[in-house]
Order: sequence, then structure tokens, then C-alpha cells
Amino acid sequence: MSVLSSGRVPFVAPPIAPIDETLKPALRALLDGKAKPLGSLGRIEELAVQIGLIQGRLDPHADRAKLMVFAGDHGLNEEGVSAYPSGVTAAMVGVFLSGRASVNALARAVGVEVQVIDAGVAAELPPHPDLISAKVRAGTRNAAREPALSWDETSNALTKGVELAEAAARDGADIVILGEMGIGNSAAAALIMHRLAPAPLDACIGAGAGHDEAGLARKTAVLRRAAERTVVAHPLEVLAEFGGYEIAMMAGAVLGAAAQRRIVMVDGFISTAAALAAIRFLPEALDYCVFSHLSDEQGHRIMLNALGVRPLLDLGLRLGEGSGAVLAAPLVRAAARLLTETVSLEEVLASMPS
Amino acid sequence: MSVLSSGRVPFVAPPIAPIDETLKPALRALLDGKAKPLGSLGRIEELAVQIGLIQGRLDPHADRAKLMVFAGDHGLNEEGVSAYPSGVTAAMVGVFLSGRASVNALARAVGVEVQVIDAGVAAELPPHPDLISAKVRAGTRNAAREPALSWDETSNALTKGVELAEAAARDGADIVILGEMGIGNSAAAALIMHRLAPAPLDACIGAGAGHDEAGLARKTAVLRRAAERTVVAHPLEVLAEFGGYEIAMMAGAVLGAAAQRRIVMVDGFISTAAALAAIRFLPEALDYCVFSHLSDEQGHRIMLNALGVRPLLDLGLRLGEGSGAVLAAPLVRAAARLLTETVSLEEVLASMPS
Repeated sequence: MSVLSSGRVPFVAPPIAPIDETLKPALRALLDGKAKPLGSLGRIEELAVQIGLIQGRLDPHADRAKLMVFAGDHGLNEEGVSAYPSGVTAAMVGVFLSGRASVNALARAVGVEVQVIDAGVAAELPPHPDLISAKVRAGTRNAAREPALSWDETSNALTKGVELAEAAARDGADIVILGEMGIGNSAAAALIMHRLAPAPLDACIGAGAGHDEAGLARKTAVLRRAAERTVVAHPLEVLAEFGGYEIAMMAGAVLGAAAQRRIVMVDGFISTAAALAAIRFLPEALDYCVFSHLSDEQGHRIMLNALGVRPLLDLGLRLGEGSGAVLAAPLVRAAARLLTETVSLEEVLASMPS
Repeated sequence: MSVLSSGRVPFVAPPIAPIDETLKPALRALLDGKAKPLGSLGRIEELAVQIGLIQGRLDPHADRAKLMVFAGDHGLNEEGVSAYPSGVTAAMVGVFLSGRASVNALARAVGVEVQVIDAGVAAELPPHPDLISAKVRAGTRNAAREPALSWDETSNALTKGVELAEAAARDGADIVILGEMGIGNSAAAALIMHRLAPAPLDACIGAGAGHDEAGLARKTAVLRRAAERTVVAHPLEVLAEFGGYEIAMMAGAVLGAAAQRRIVMVDGFISTAAALAAIRFLPEALDYCVFSHLSDEQGHRIMLNALGVRPLLDLGLRLGEGSGAVLAAPLVRAAARLLTETVSLEEVLASMPS
């Protein structure tokens, strides 16, 4: 059990069982014995092995997928790090709940359930049956000037993320998909990546939801101030320093889902920063994560390389919301079924006339 | 109307309407007006435009997808161009019909219907309610020695392919997915690519379903003899010279589906060779094709480049059966829904407090 209690409220991380690699040869043999040329399903076979190891069985199931969209605002946005005003976060939460955001349409196309979580939106959101209120605070503090989250808030956000992922698992989700909405959160994610990948700050900063050259220069200057303000390097302290609530809660969700031996699908730049924090804190979490796509946000490739992972898709996406992970969910489902629903070569040969 | 009648039975190609590009600005504007950063869904947006143009509407639908697996055998296999005996083709047809082939599992995972067509299997197949018998002949002739198909057979195979795709369209398929099974058909596809990409023969020959170095050398020598036997360059004559029945029927299916303004999803190396023949014959067919993945078979990248297209997925697949196209089908569905089920930025802004 991992506990971090540098402040008053300790964060008690759930125990994550390391993947049991001893099952790997049996999974590999099962795939190699199928009625198809050896290795001919490439990365789908690798996925099948990973899913089998995650669930610790030769007949894994990966049909039910739940997207959790964590929303939060960033005090850093006062400094003009985003091309959009913070009010857009609350507006987009409304759009998610109306089922008419891009990710809702994609999720319906592939049969993924969508859950929206207010982790820290800087507005009072009207109650809605499909909205989970887990608001830690109405937006983070300005990380260019002070820690974005207090330690207690960080611990609360992490714990809430763990609990929400555990609830999704109890509710039958085989796959927990990370999504997010938060104006300014590519700035926070860049700082997390800078400190935890680690990587030079310039390599971590991209256009986000859309910046011209002047906007990018402003974002870079602000993030330099934020980075210079503090030297913390512990993954959870990095989350506290730079935020935001939605990113910390996503990091908690990674830990909670992994502890429940669920497949975690990581989306793009911001989701990956959350997963990076979770994995730097508890490295056992890595094997539970499927990295779904390579984002068009410039730092993403470097962050994935720092984790030693290769994404499934490369479609030039840079939307967030969990969009890329939702689009990759069918690949995970297909990989599981490859193990459970296909015939062995032996059986086919036995049925052939000699 | 395109007619080719170098022999007795003319092939009357269905008329394919060129894509009406005038709708493109409206589709682009619709996407740009959605509540998301401009262009942030990358290739999904490009797909949405293509689907809109194919159907000639701003509200396309792409939910129902039908995989058509065309099976056929190759006389060329007498020369040892494959690591497997021809009997495997018939055995795999049985597996498809039992619903336990790899592609059946993948298709179930993504909700794609599977149809199996005997285009020219070298065995008498027992009748089965889900098997469409369209057998032109029990396997092609040996293309290393003589034309694999007679002209009449070629015309018949093409016509049957057109009719089957038209039937799928009438039956409500928005997406026609090409799949194939035929021991030795990567050899036939290499010859088609060589003549029609065109490309040097060596660049067209790969390991297929699995060759060691000696096998690959044998395959290369045989294909050199076949290529030197004839100088034909007309796309339909190339199909006749090198075969096979399943490839010619797939080429017909491309034409038939395009004529019905349906989305055609092309799978890997062999499907692409069939599409190449169809497109070289009627270039208007190109805009109806979605190239689903980059196969691990070495010539595929060059063939896709020759067509000027970029595949959606790159997962190291080299199975055939339509497996890669099936896995990409959810992306096409998602792209259509992006156009029809998401809210405009204007509407969101109107709902925000000022």
C-alpha cells in the first residue's frame, strides 16, 4: 500500500498487482496455434497478450467500455495560456451532457458509455442525472504564481479518481477510458511532462486547442515562470504544483482501474500526462495502460517515448475529450475476441480431408 | 458506360458518377463550424468529407457495413508460390462459415456482417445457407505457363462482383468491405501490382502468409516467368493473365459499390491489387475507396503510393480476410456521425452566459 502524506490528508493508493508475466508464454502459444499465419495480426496480437495478462486469464473479455470525461479549470488561464476563455469548459460540460459533443458521437459510433465528472470546473454547474459532481474547487490557483492545488486537494482529487474507477469496474466496465475537458490543461500537462518525462520545457509545449505564434510565445513564457517557481519532482507533488483537478483525478482513475485489473485506455497529450504521473508514482500501473493514439500536440511523441510505449492510432487528432481512446476501443475488443472466439489450426487440420 | 469485349462475353461496367467536388466547401464549413478546435479531429474530418462526397450529402450515414470475403484458388500454387497447400482455401471457407475465423471474431467485435463468396475455390464446397456460390471455375490455370483466366471467365467474375456489390447496396449496406481468402493470391496480386502500379517486380513480392528465404526465392523465380510470359497492360487483361477469380470479383465489387455510391473499404495487399485494377480501368472509382490499413506485406506501401492514398491504420497486419478493413470500419462510422450528431460552435456560444 502506497501512502503519501506530506500534508494533512494522506493519499492511500490502492494496491496494484504487478502483471503476472508467467502467463505470457501460454497466451503467445494460444495465438500461435490459431488458424492463421504466425503473427499475422501484428499489434492486435500484442494487445491480446496484454489484455490476457491484465486480467490474468487466457479468455479475457473486453466488451464493456466506459469513457470518463473529467472536467476542470485552470487558474493558469488568467495568463492567457489558452486560445479560449475558461467559460468554455462549463459550456462543453453542458454539451457532453446533451450528448452532442464530438466524443459523444464517436462513442455512440463504437458503443462506448460516456460519464462526465466535474472535477473542478470554475462555474456552478446545474445538476444533471448524468453528471457526477466531484468538484474539489472551482478551478485551480494560478500555477505561474503559486501551487495550483493544495496537498489536501491533490489527495482528494486522487482519491476521488480511484473511487470513480473502482465504481466503474464494479459496474462491469472491462475498459476504463480516460477523457478530459479543461481550457488551459495542455499547459498544465506540459509542465507535468517537463518535470516527470522528464523533458526540456520547450519540447513539452504545443499549440494546444489552437494558438498562433504570439499565443505560443505567451504560453511558453508563462510556463517558464511556472516551472522556475518550484523544483518538486515527486509525481504527486508535481500534480499539486501544476494541476489540475481533472488531471489529478485522471491519475487516480488510472491507479483505481489498474488496482481492479481493468484495461485503462489513455487518450492524448493531457491523458498521457495524467497516466505519466500515476505511473511514475506506481510503475506497476504501466502494464494496465493501452496508449490509444499519437496526438498532433507536439510533445506527445516524446512523452510516449519516455514511457517506452507505442500508440495504436496515428490520425492527427488533437481534440482531447477521450476522442482518440474511444476510436481505439474497438481494437481492444477485437483483440480479446481473437483469443476467445477463433479456431485453432489443429482443429482445422483435423477437419481437412487427408 | 464502359464496355470491354476483346473476347466473346463483353464486360459492361456500371456507370460510376464522378464525385461532385462542389459539395466539399459546404462539408468543410460544416466541420469547421462544429464545437471543437479547427481541424482537431484530423483524418476523421478528412474521412467525413470523403463520405459526404461519396453520398453527395451533408448528412451521410455509414452504420451498416458488410464484409464480402471472396475465396478462390490459384493454379500458380503448383509452382510452390505459397507456404500453404491450396486445400487450405476450402478449409478456411468452412471456418468462415462456422464463424470462427479471425475475421469473424473481429467482425463481431465491431458489428460487421460477414458474407462468404466462392469465386473459384478448387474444391466442391458443401452448400451452406451463408455461402454464396459464384464459382467461375475450380481454381485458375497456372499463370506461370498460360493466362490464369480466359477472357470470358474474367468478364463473368467482374460481372458477378458488380452484381454482388449492387445486391449488398440494395440490402442496405452503407459500407462494402473487401476481404479475400486464396492460397497463392499474394503472388497473383504481386503480378497485378507489377503491371498496373506499375513497379519493378522485386518491389512487389513479399513473404505473403509466410515464406522463408528459399520460399521467397522460389516465388520470385516463378513470378518472373509469369511476368515475362505476357506484355499485357490493360487492367482487365492483367486480371485475366494473372488471376484470380476472387481478385477479379473483388475488382467488380469495387465498381459495383462505387456505381451505387457506397463506401468501399479496401483491406491489405491483395484487396488493394483488386482495387488498383478497378481504378486503373475506371479512375472515378478511386474516390469511393477508403484504404484501411498499411499491410506488413512489403509491396503494399508502394502500391498505396502509386494510387496516391494514405491508409488509416498501421498495425503490422498481414492476414487478409478483410481483417484490417473490418478494424477500420468504426472510424468510418464515427466520421459520418461527426457530421450529423454534433453541435455547432454557434449554438454553444448562444447558450453561454454573456
